[in-house]
Amino acid sequence: MNSEEIKSTLKKYSLQSWSKQKNINPISVEKGDGIYFWDYDGNRYSDMSSQLVNMNLGFSNKAIGDAIKEQVDQYCFVGPSFGAESRAKLAKKIVELMPNNMGKVFFTNAGAESNENAVKIARMFTGKSKIFSRYRSYHGSSFGAGNLTGEPRRYALEPGVPGFVKFFDPYIYREAIEFESEEAATKYYLTKLKEQILYEGPDSVGAIVLETITGSNGIIIPPKGYLPGVRKLCDEFNILMICDEVMTGWGRTGKMFAFENFDVKPDIVTFAKGVTCGYVQLGGVVVSKEIAAYFDDNILSCGLTYSGHPLACAAGVACVNYYEEADILTNVNKMGIVLGEKLEAMKDSHPCVGDVRYIGLFSAVELVKDKVTKEPLVPYGKDPEGIMGKILNELKARKFMTYTHENMILVAPPLIITKEQLEEELVKLDEVLEIIDKEYI
Amino acid sequence: MNSEEIKSTLKKYSLQSWSKQKNINPISVEKGDGIYFWDYDGNRYSDMSSQLVNMNLGFSNKAIGDAIKEQVDQYCFVGPSFGAESRAKLAKKIVELMPNNMGKVFFTNAGAESNENAVKIARMFTGKSKIFSRYRSYHGSSFGAGNLTGEPRRYALEPGVPGFVKFFDPYIYREAIEFESEEAATKYYLTKLKEQILYEGPDSVGAIVLETITGSNGIIIPPKGYLPGVRKLCDEFNILMICDEVMTGWGRTGKMFAFENFDVKPDIVTFAKGVTCGYVQLGGVVVSKEIAAYFDDNILSCGLTYSGHPLACAAGVACVNYYEEADILTNVNKMGIVLGEKLEAMKDSHPCVGDVRYIGLFSAVELVKDKVTKEPLVPYGKDPEGIMGKILNELKARKFMTYTHENMILVAPPLIITKEQLEEELVKLDEVLEIIDKEYI
Repeated sequence: MNSEEIKSTLKKYSLQSWSKQKNINPISVEKGDGIYFWDYDGNRYSDMSSQLVNMNLGFSNKAIGDAIKEQVDQYCFVGPSFGAESRAKLAKKIVELMPNNMGKVFFTNAGAESNENAVKIARMFTGKSKIFSRYRSYHGSSFGAGNLTGEPRRYALEPGVPGFVKFFDPYIYREAIEFESEEAATKYYLTKLKEQILYEGPDSVGAIVLETITGSNGIIIPPKGYLPGVRKLCDEFNILMICDEVMTGWGRTGKMFAFENFDVKPDIVTFAKGVTCGYVQLGGVVVSKEIAAYFDDNILSCGLTYSGHPLACAAGVACVNYYEEADILTNVNKMGIVLGEKLEAMKDSHPCVGDVRYIGLFSAVELVKDKVTKEPLVPYGKDPEGIMGKILNELKARKFMTYTHENMILVAPPLIITKEQLEEELVKLDEVLEIIDKEYI
Repeated sequence: MNSEEIKSTLKKYSLQSWSKQKNINPISVEKGDGIYFWDYDGNRYSDMSSQLVNMNLGFSNKAIGDAIKEQVDQYCFVGPSFGAESRAKLAKKIVELMPNNMGKVFFTNAGAESNENAVKIARMFTGKSKIFSRYRSYHGSSFGAGNLTGEPRRYALEPGVPGFVKFFDPYIYREAIEFESEEAATKYYLTKLKEQILYEGPDSVGAIVLETITGSNGIIIPPKGYLPGVRKLCDEFNILMICDEVMTGWGRTGKMFAFENFDVKPDIVTFAKGVTCGYVQLGGVVVSKEIAAYFDDNILSCGLTYSGHPLACAAGVACVNYYEEADILTNVNKMGIVLGEKLEAMKDSHPCVGDVRYIGLFSAVELVKDKVTKEPLVPYGKDPEGIMGKILNELKARKFMTYTHENMILVAPPLIITKEQLEEELVKLDEVLEIIDKEYI
């Protein structure tokens, strides 16, 4: 098929996520290499969102590709109750990368399923049915994961699963009150959370699920002391702390897992995306030794045909080894400094930039009409003039590919990006912010 | 790793589906070819369940393997909003294999997710929230799919999603009344279903979800006229008919899709397993042209990172083409006759066989203590003496690998099985039935 045939065939025969289908207009991708991919006309695009924040190692990583081919030659699949070497190797590798309280991994296909199963495991282990999660979170769009989700992509799943309770995240930039310090903010959010736990009844709350750092909803980084405070509340009330590391895991924030930035040990960790960079779909749930032991004598009532898919696990082993062998974390930390400095400079120089938030190579630019009033560039949940779409088109015209959410632009390039590449791309972003300054505020 | 290391590593670091972990004892699989696979000691096993009824073409199908390798050389992944050739080709191929009322496909990772999204789509399209599904069904174990499920694997998901309603399936062999004919049974089940729709309120019922032929719960084949009757009720009350073809699709029953055996056209079809034989994980939801058109102007509020995964779709294109090029349906229909004759002979000769049910290469043997009273070999939901496990072990000792459900043995070999292979394997089953006759009834 040529480029036009691919596009017209997809428009005729397939449904695309989160879209009115009359609007879809896919760029056909012919090939990819590192942070770049090309359409069939030879245009080169820069992948500044690592696709959906999953392609941490970019396109065409040879180590992962070779591992997939080698596994094909052994076999692609054998059922979850059989022993496959790649499954064993990856389970061991993942648990060894975790804090020493963690025990075993249950494999899934992707992030939503990981969160589904984390909730099931938490309910089985604790015998408590209420599950706390936060507004402005995204955990997936199946019924369980989607009911954890705290933004509009949940609405198609309502009325929701009984027992799912929402609380507010520490979104300091737009909080209804101003805080004197990070510590004051932390104290406020933990006090409100404790109050809500008490009013829901601690004896019925099984788990608190949170993206360690909120991802799609705007790279909301918890203030100092917040996550240890949540941990303490969990300990006080015998609640499991579940960290969703689907986006933030596997080096994205400069640590292998984002919770390492905050000195906390979760009871359950969910992961996906970066574990294979999406070369083959894979996700999983890591549980503490204590939880793992419970299922020695109690049936784990979780299952899926493709749990621990051998081809996916082979990709995972190669991918995780690559993070270590190529010392990816060092690059993330170095490039993270470059990214942070450039974003701060943009905030200083552009009236349209209300806030920039960044950690490692995980960042967002929040656009406003007015820096002082913080009025968002587009109102929450609406964009009648299609301004964010126009901004995306300006970026796309410069071959800077990413996605937006509400009034925010996400910047999360592959973790292998070089300084030269990063600087070259951020010049494009700067240009577009200048257009926004002039045309939209 | 050697065999023992794989096993001990999995026991130490991974959680296995639907099990008490102290009981897991995985056979490490070194290689596979066609209907056979081998452990590391050179023992050859016959895969009489096609793993989890997904490996329709058995192990090491070269066409699928080559397609995966070729796709690795282009790229493994690009996001769902971009155009990938394999995604376009497979979407077109699948829709063309469907009845002419069908329009578009939404891709997922596997069966549970397909059913999750089918329900979401049905609710969006109809604006009605109640969803009917059946007892003795299995649709997956995430919150949405698991609440469709009508057997104990649902319990860990309760209290369930509001609006999910269960009705009874046409399990004639164990119905509380005896029918004079298939037609009389059909009339009874449809009358009861209509009554339940009326009492739930037809204006609030959005969809009826059913495995076209109930799979894991015992290959329950609908009586003549049943599915057309359900179709008629759906038309009468403006309800969508959703056929779950996750197990039954892709040739398993002798037709490409099982609903073709019954001359009905569903509004939505879910699939997974056989579309790629699980070589790479893939599932999907096919919707009618009318439903597809609705989403031209209305947002499809469904999405997942790996929708239309290019590597999975490449495997799918090769797999579906192979079904056609190798004329798999002809083999299924020929071998289905052999299988049916042998099963009927076993039913005649073994006191422990209460019923055999089969269509194509999809079959179950239902074990009883007494043919006349139909008392099951093990009571529903219980097996205190572990009899079914012992039976599985007898089969395993003969390298006949499958799984059981309640008092039933599933037989669903790869669709490429030859007459000689099938006959050789069924001799083993016959031997084990003789042991059951002697020892357990």
